[in-house]
Amino acid sequence: MNTIVLKFGGSSVADNDKLKVVADKIIKLKEANYDVVVVVSAQGKSTDHLLEEAYMLSPNPSNRELDVLLSTGEQVSISKLSILLNELGYKAVSLTGWQAGIYTNNTNQDAIIEHIDSSRITNELSHGKIVIIAGFQGINETLDITTLGRGGSDTTAVSVAAALNAKCCYIYSDVEGVFTTDPRKFPEAVKLKELSYDEMLDISNEGAKVLHNRCVELGKKFNIPIMAKSTFNEDEGTIVNNKIEVQKVKSLVKNDELVLVQMKNNNTNIIDIYKMLISNQIMPIEYIDNIYEIRILLKAGDYRKLEYISGSVFKDYHITSKKISRISIIGYGITNDTNVLGSTINLLEAEDTKIQKIDINNGKIRLTFNTIVGNDVLERIHKELIK
Amino acid sequence: MNTIVLKFGGSSVADNDKLKVVADKIIKLKEANYDVVVVVSAQGKSTDHLLEEAYMLSPNPSNRELDVLLSTGEQVSISKLSILLNELGYKAVSLTGWQAGIYTNNTNQDAIIEHIDSSRITNELSHGKIVIIAGFQGINETLDITTLGRGGSDTTAVSVAAALNAKCCYIYSDVEGVFTTDPRKFPEAVKLKELSYDEMLDISNEGAKVLHNRCVELGKKFNIPIMAKSTFNEDEGTIVNNKIEVQKVKSLVKNDELVLVQMKNNNTNIIDIYKMLISNQIMPIEYIDNIYEIRILLKAGDYRKLEYISGSVFKDYHITSKKISRISIIGYGITNDTNVLGSTINLLEAEDTKIQKIDINNGKIRLTFNTIVGNDVLERIHKELIK
Repeated sequence: MNTIVLKFGGSSVADNDKLKVVADKIIKLKEANYDVVVVVSAQGKSTDHLLEEAYMLSPNPSNRELDVLLSTGEQVSISKLSILLNELGYKAVSLTGWQAGIYTNNTNQDAIIEHIDSSRITNELSHGKIVIIAGFQGINETLDITTLGRGGSDTTAVSVAAALNAKCCYIYSDVEGVFTTDPRKFPEAVKLKELSYDEMLDISNEGAKVLHNRCVELGKKFNIPIMAKSTFNEDEGTIVNNKIEVQKVKSLVKNDELVLVQMKNNNTNIIDIYKMLISNQIMPIEYIDNIYEIRILLKAGDYRKLEYISGSVFKDYHITSKKISRISIIGYGITNDTNVLGSTINLLEAEDTKIQKIDINNGKIRLTFNTIVGNDVLERIHKELIK
Repeated sequence: MNTIVLKFGGSSVADNDKLKVVADKIIKLKEANYDVVVVVSAQGKSTDHLLEEAYMLSPNPSNRELDVLLSTGEQVSISKLSILLNELGYKAVSLTGWQAGIYTNNTNQDAIIEHIDSSRITNELSHGKIVIIAGFQGINETLDITTLGRGGSDTTAVSVAAALNAKCCYIYSDVEGVFTTDPRKFPEAVKLKELSYDEMLDISNEGAKVLHNRCVELGKKFNIPIMAKSTFNEDEGTIVNNKIEVQKVKSLVKNDELVLVQMKNNNTNIIDIYKMLISNQIMPIEYIDNIYEIRILLKAGDYRKLEYISGSVFKDYHITSKKISRISIIGYGITNDTNVLGSTINLLEAEDTKIQKIDINNGKIRLTFNTIVGNDVLERIHKELIK
């Protein structure tokens, strides 16, 4: 099979002009003799608008009914894109999640794809059609509509690519690819041509917003190359695959959205605290225990949840907090010797920037500071390590 | 079973305030110990808006893709209404056409319901839930979404009522029921308590816009009483059923949307003309043939189609036309004797109103005029016949 899967996010299909840009890209690949499957998200902010309308009716809408409501967003996108492709002279057919055979577990609003029955998709492809699939949605064992939660359309795309044994899954968005660091903050960032699934997972885990983890994990599991590229220019993007590469620093991620929380009380017991956090859907990243207090690292979003419940759940604790920065250095083989770590430490020591903690993992060095540090710190490391 | 089916049209669910009115009506019936199934249309003008968006992308969108697009309208309505009922403390579950087991033929945009697999509906009812079903939509044998065409939600409601052997199907709308004549034009119109399926079909066929024919035909076929009533007040509506009634004039319909078309040409052949009309989706109502010309009666909408193609398809014909009125008198048994016809003719003759043609059918007398006549003509007949 010569099948490729393309995924276009909400900002790529936000209006009719953008739909035409998307249609052009699809047609070029169809004309290059690929069997083309396209996964699309809901247009622009339509999912947010539907959510608002639901919350106007109820502060606690059921997840099942929210999924019925939200799934209409992608259904609108797929039909419009098919209508446009037909108008441009190409045979296209739209498929909702359930029509495309995307079966999930029963967790409404955060479902996981369990298997894909791709018979309808392959049948439509065999008739020369471009197949347009609603991302972000599926169907569970009781034939209820489910949605996949954040990044769901990326997950749909890679899952469909795996089911079809596709050559490649293209994730189009308003991001041009994966960079040596965040290009919106650092002009010196350079786009990468290629990186491995593990490198990409590390970059995402450390807080970069390019590709969603679940989609990269699926790409790795089924060995589907993932190309991240821009909808709005013709530049090459970044390909994520499993080719063995040279030992090299690939990307730096600076995360300023971390909060170090100190908790004090007479009976400090980390297990009790963890139980309380987890039962409130808060995921602690790390903790440092000592006799007098517990220090827990949280993502900023989770810290806001903690603030919300601190007066009730943690009323017996004295809680203080501060925002901190973490810089992560990611690249295949960079922890096989001391070169990268050595030059980074020398650089920061010379400049008197205090490092609170250093973690070394396979292919990843993580520097945690005990305060927010300036972007100039990352810039100096970038200049030193990425040449 | 103690099941009832309620149907609410687009104007009844147009916004959140109206949804609350609808929810109150549903709850009252649920509290009266009925198993309640609700069929809803898309909100307000949302179907029209979706159509507009489709035509902005293509002047000829495929019917299959239009159905994918339009069916999102009812899907939004069902989820919102379910969310609202849940919020008000009632168990409710929304079902799309395919989830409700509504199987249709393959005619996208004008599908006919072929059968209903009501197992999901009855299962949800057995758990005490209010079941909210998307009207106007179904699924065909290839698992594609279909829509039913005009009046589709009424048809869904009566079909579901038949499948569930419901006690009654309530059609809620902004119309209060069936009247002795059109209440928007004639203040003397009186609401009817009860009439038969055949009387209702005659009233609809003659041009009154209360209940759609297909839904009344289904009610008749499966003997489901249909109650037409207002969403916006508590008044009793009109029940349509098969009870034998007294011989009586039920309703007068004045139709001014008819056009008498004269067509002249050397080889005048009615079969040729009919073929040309039919191949252009124009349905001739009647014709009068003579040596020199053919006169065909068309609905105003069909006449506009004829105008559109007259320069091409009928370029060899000399066509002239005029709008005319028709008044229909409907009631069980009124053609069994000459009383009604006699008093009508006497009345019109005394007033010198020219009748072009009189048709007598079982339970229906039709007066066709050769020009538009004033509403005062109907008012005089109404005063004479309905007491």
